[in-house]
Amino acid sequence: MNIENTAADWLSYRPEIRVLDCTIRDGGLMNNHHFEDRVVKAVYAACTASKIDYMEIGYRASRKDIQMGEHGCWKYCLEEDIRRIVGDSIGGPKLSIMADAGKCDYREDIPPKKDSVVDLVRVACYIHQIPAALDMLKDATNKGYETTVNLMAVTTVGDRELNDGLAMLAQSEAQAIYVVDSFGALYCEQVRRLVAKYLMYARAEGKEVGIHAHNNLQLAYANTIEAIILGANYLDATMAGLGRGAGNCPMELLLGLLRNPKYNLVPVLKCVEETIEPLRKQLGWGFDLPYMITGLFNQHPRAAIKFNAATERGDIADFYEAVTEAH
Amino acid sequence: MNIENTAADWLSYRPEIRVLDCTIRDGGLMNNHHFEDRVVKAVYAACTASKIDYMEIGYRASRKDIQMGEHGCWKYCLEEDIRRIVGDSIGGPKLSIMADAGKCDYREDIPPKKDSVVDLVRVACYIHQIPAALDMLKDATNKGYETTVNLMAVTTVGDRELNDGLAMLAQSEAQAIYVVDSFGALYCEQVRRLVAKYLMYARAEGKEVGIHAHNNLQLAYANTIEAIILGANYLDATMAGLGRGAGNCPMELLLGLLRNPKYNLVPVLKCVEETIEPLRKQLGWGFDLPYMITGLFNQHPRAAIKFNAATERGDIADFYEAVTEAH
Repeated sequence: MNIENTAADWLSYRPEIRVLDCTIRDGGLMNNHHFEDRVVKAVYAACTASKIDYMEIGYRASRKDIQMGEHGCWKYCLEEDIRRIVGDSIGGPKLSIMADAGKCDYREDIPPKKDSVVDLVRVACYIHQIPAALDMLKDATNKGYETTVNLMAVTTVGDRELNDGLAMLAQSEAQAIYVVDSFGALYCEQVRRLVAKYLMYARAEGKEVGIHAHNNLQLAYANTIEAIILGANYLDATMAGLGRGAGNCPMELLLGLLRNPKYNLVPVLKCVEETIEPLRKQLGWGFDLPYMITGLFNQHPRAAIKFNAATERGDIADFYEAVTEAH
Repeated sequence: MNIENTAADWLSYRPEIRVLDCTIRDGGLMNNHHFEDRVVKAVYAACTASKIDYMEIGYRASRKDIQMGEHGCWKYCLEEDIRRIVGDSIGGPKLSIMADAGKCDYREDIPPKKDSVVDLVRVACYIHQIPAALDMLKDATNKGYETTVNLMAVTTVGDRELNDGLAMLAQSEAQAIYVVDSFGALYCEQVRRLVAKYLMYARAEGKEVGIHAHNNLQLAYANTIEAIILGANYLDATMAGLGRGAGNCPMELLLGLLRNPKYNLVPVLKCVEETIEPLRKQLGWGFDLPYMITGLFNQHPRAAIKFNAATERGDIADFYEAVTEAH
């Protein structure tokens, strides 16, 4: 890495960078997607005023056998729900929905683009679901959407499998392939290695690379910076870092870093202060020892979420022992 | 940077690394050094059980013209106060005090080492105080102490001045020279550049380099990792990140990273959970938008501390405007 060159780049910017806000989508994992319209509207307004490129408003998930009221509407993102927030969406960010492989009846539930206010379908899959993801990417592309793909939990994937998976995804219709640190377990050095690898596969096919980080080790922002330096151009962030467990890369830090004058930090500051921070106590995201411990041992945060949801807080040493034994 | 080599190093450790806990010293800036003995004893016990190398228990500051009760005893660290906590300190961490250039009557207030339970005198100075710091380092060394030097607020120092300053400090008695990011304004790339520079001056004289980071941009831990990778061996951290403003590099993250089997994370987890986190509401350290904003613009956190101490929280957009105008 040439330190002098990167220092020179510090004052300029890359117009290719795209910032995606996934506050409501990832944050929905902390409240079963039950956000009041007021909150969703405030995030949309902040994205609009800050010139954030994309806003991911939720999931599109199968509605077969659902139980009324169990999940809020942002698990399904019906067109009517989205339009209630964004109106005709003129002048706002492009809109994104996430569709999980195996959890979405995409053939029926995703209409042709001409009938939708959504611009981007982000397909999320685990390594063994790549064939399903490829079908979903083709379906959404044929219907007229932009598409990207999030290969989740990359820290659990071996190098050989990852190479094969990236070779398959590089042949897909997706315009970007994301490095996804679902467990918040990556150190900066590992991010550098992964982004370099993803870029090798993606760039050969004219695709971009993205980064979606979690903050279990207080490295979500640092890892996002490393990914930017290496050449990742699709950047996920959320207001106040709201997201599952320890949360995501905070949008306020990311916009504070980016030098593109089109972005505007102040509406994000106001959204964080007035709308998102007041939810922290109830939703309980953010850095905390249990999330740190699952991150340290590269585990899904579900044990930590359970520990934090208990009425009475348990013993942290016992939790540590349980996680290291399960390891 | 050879990525393959650093990956291989990931599983080993450097026995030269020294971890210094400065929870009570840096945290004292949030409560005028008024810690109950219970808290100081808990930190000391955790350092002992975790095999942390040094514990910095406070400042040694001039007691001329002091007003009784204005500051707690950890601003002065009288021998009797320290001994009340550590007893004869056998089996515990080495003990450190910080002495600020211009704020310490070091000739009288620092006794010969044989009369003190303190092991290390850390001299802190701004760039223009280096001549005073050199005197202090000589005095403490002659009295029998280990010494290190913290050149504060390095982000405000020009390259030419810094080179001259480092050349002077390299000739001092200090065993280590610290990169100190007082304003929490450094990005990882800048840390790499600074640590490389400090190492060039320090290693030529057989000295080590240290890192003392602040968390205004959620980069204290990430920056500490970068410094370690480059070769810094003296690492400052605090329990739960307790420290001025946005706080410091969290000890729980640092010990979670280091591979030296002598360190033990669990006593730190318990100290954070049982003793330090319960103080957060009253002391108010940690990442927060006002600290982020002063960090972004490389300013002392005092405006942010004032904003956060106000009975009623002000408007964050107004604060942002005030800081950028002052910039």
